[in-house]
Amino acid sequence: MSIVLRAAGAFALLATLAQPAAAQPSSAPPAAGNAAPGLQPGPLSIARQGSFFVGGRDTRSDTLSNEAAFGSSGTVSVDQMYVRYQIPAEAGAHRPVVFVHGCCLTGKTWETTPDGRMGWDEYFVRRGHPTYVVDQSWRGRSAANPAPINGVRAGRAGPETLPPVVVAGREDAWAIFRFGRRHPEVFPGMMFPLDAQGEFWKQMVPDWNYSAPSPNPTPSHLSTLARQLDGTVLVSHSQSGIYPFQSATMSRDGIAGIVAIEPASCPAADGNMTPYAGLPILVLWGDFVNESTRWAPRLAGCTAFMRAANAAGGKVEQVMLADVGMPGNSHMLMQDRNSLQVADWLAGWIARNVGDRR
Amino acid sequence: MSIVLRAAGAFALLATLAQPAAAQPSSAPPAAGNAAPGLQPGPLSIARQGSFFVGGRDTRSDTLSNEAAFGSSGTVSVDQMYVRYQIPAEAGAHRPVVFVHGCCLTGKTWETTPDGRMGWDEYFVRRGHPTYVVDQSWRGRSAANPAPINGVRAGRAGPETLPPVVVAGREDAWAIFRFGRRHPEVFPGMMFPLDAQGEFWKQMVPDWNYSAPSPNPTPSHLSTLARQLDGTVLVSHSQSGIYPFQSATMSRDGIAGIVAIEPASCPAADGNMTPYAGLPILVLWGDFVNESTRWAPRLAGCTAFMRAANAAGGKVEQVMLADVGMPGNSHMLMQDRNSLQVADWLAGWIARNVGDRR
Repeated sequence: MSIVLRAAGAFALLATLAQPAAAQPSSAPPAAGNAAPGLQPGPLSIARQGSFFVGGRDTRSDTLSNEAAFGSSGTVSVDQMYVRYQIPAEAGAHRPVVFVHGCCLTGKTWETTPDGRMGWDEYFVRRGHPTYVVDQSWRGRSAANPAPINGVRAGRAGPETLPPVVVAGREDAWAIFRFGRRHPEVFPGMMFPLDAQGEFWKQMVPDWNYSAPSPNPTPSHLSTLARQLDGTVLVSHSQSGIYPFQSATMSRDGIAGIVAIEPASCPAADGNMTPYAGLPILVLWGDFVNESTRWAPRLAGCTAFMRAANAAGGKVEQVMLADVGMPGNSHMLMQDRNSLQVADWLAGWIARNVGDRR
Repeated sequence: MSIVLRAAGAFALLATLAQPAAAQPSSAPPAAGNAAPGLQPGPLSIARQGSFFVGGRDTRSDTLSNEAAFGSSGTVSVDQMYVRYQIPAEAGAHRPVVFVHGCCLTGKTWETTPDGRMGWDEYFVRRGHPTYVVDQSWRGRSAANPAPINGVRAGRAGPETLPPVVVAGREDAWAIFRFGRRHPEVFPGMMFPLDAQGEFWKQMVPDWNYSAPSPNPTPSHLSTLARQLDGTVLVSHSQSGIYPFQSATMSRDGIAGIVAIEPASCPAADGNMTPYAGLPILVLWGDFVNESTRWAPRLAGCTAFMRAANAAGGKVEQVMLADVGMPGNSHMLMQDRNSLQVADWLAGWIARNVGDRR
């Protein structure tokens, strides 16, 4: 508990550094610094930043619109993956890190937390890592294809052809995010900032994953991005957990390491382990996992994968944060109250196991 | 023409400063500087950055999902507006600027251009302005509500109840964006980087605007954001053109100026002009407007609005970029090859007409 309490002071300072400007006049001066290890204090110095797309496929349709103001026929681009990046001025040889969100969410996952603290997108930049945040294909700023909906509305196809578009209700999501066993119960000592939960639920968007092409385009795009970055750590979360493993199966080029945060699944333990041989892989979990009927089997599956991979020359490590001094983390550990403490630990793992660029 | 030619040298340098990192090793050094007036050279120094939501409304549904893995009943948040911001270390008294994209697009509009040059989101920060980029309600990272689609798929409602979700085909969009009179014709001297048009089409996402509540939530959220920023310039584009005017009608609090870039509409000239009295307002247009059957009437409508507003104590100015030395701009002038030259001109207009914070 002492680690948590000591860290709380640093977090209070960090909060002043990263509060949404809407909460205070934008002319307010930045905080002078803070006590978190590894953090560059004061203003953030960026060498380059911007956004771009990876991939994309042209498709024609005659049901783009039923509105008079827009033509119904034409070509649109789908499957592309939006990426926003920041490269610190003092990147040195630190590895780029690619952050991939989970179900029903977008890259917002890694930005300012619901209670207004600095997100991992900025924190890893401050620690010297070029940082890349994606919206998975068919999510957020990465276009889905709604043309089939307009086709059904126009009577050109039956309702059974409608694309599935899931949106997660908070009552069911509560247990999935392991805030508690069931809504609205709370696990004792659980670290998610529930006071700001309303801001978290706003992060959830329509999830077209069941409508996207199969195989899903995102793993291939992550492979392309990794090759372009020439040595990156792919960090997944939850629903995207399997994607970096699938990318590694396509090609190891550019993949320097994989961090699977609370993955919905790991590769099957009876599969081919060759793609993972010698690759530093971390499977990272918060707390209360074995108290969740949803997550306990997934943890067990990842344990089986770890053993199979390591028996075949793998370098897979599975870590429960509670075992390294950080109890209480939820499924959304990158937004939990100790999120920057977890980030420090993760950055240390990357430094020790993946290392800098050669 | 000499202005354009002189500027071209600066743009070449800027391009090296802001290319997508995917196009080059991320350890490449930033450019040493550039020749564009007003631009802070070298690394960008950020006092604070992050993202947050404005507004949002809880709604319950029993058709959130038809997939077994997700519950069908529960509460979701819709209508909220995603905002990403950066505050320069040397903001001084420069006004915050809020950028609002147009139809079928997201805040990506203002980020890295399709051909990899710096977006206005960063350029205005480099010029000292705190910068806020939104995704309109029901677009991109601002959640739409797909529950009615699942309801029809489940047979609980008829196809006529399906929400309209428009996606713009590039062949029709070509003339709307005024790349030429019709696809694939090109206006002579037109400045959009057509060599990179494929990257531009990837920016287009499903547009739920016809499904969103009426009145649309975004103008109210812009009003809230302006109040929080305590004196900002609201910059709209195209479909969002009327929104800042609607915000000003709700309240003038926090609105220091309005820049309507190629607005789909201005307020009706026979309406109440009181909300605009004394407020610095710029209506800004690219080239070829009167060669477009779509845009010529909208220009005429804005001219009528300008006259009516100014007769009632308004400070409305309408500018054709070709009249101030910048011919050839398309509807997407923030991405045109002279985009930073246009930005410099616009920053000058803001400085002269809105001025700094008191």
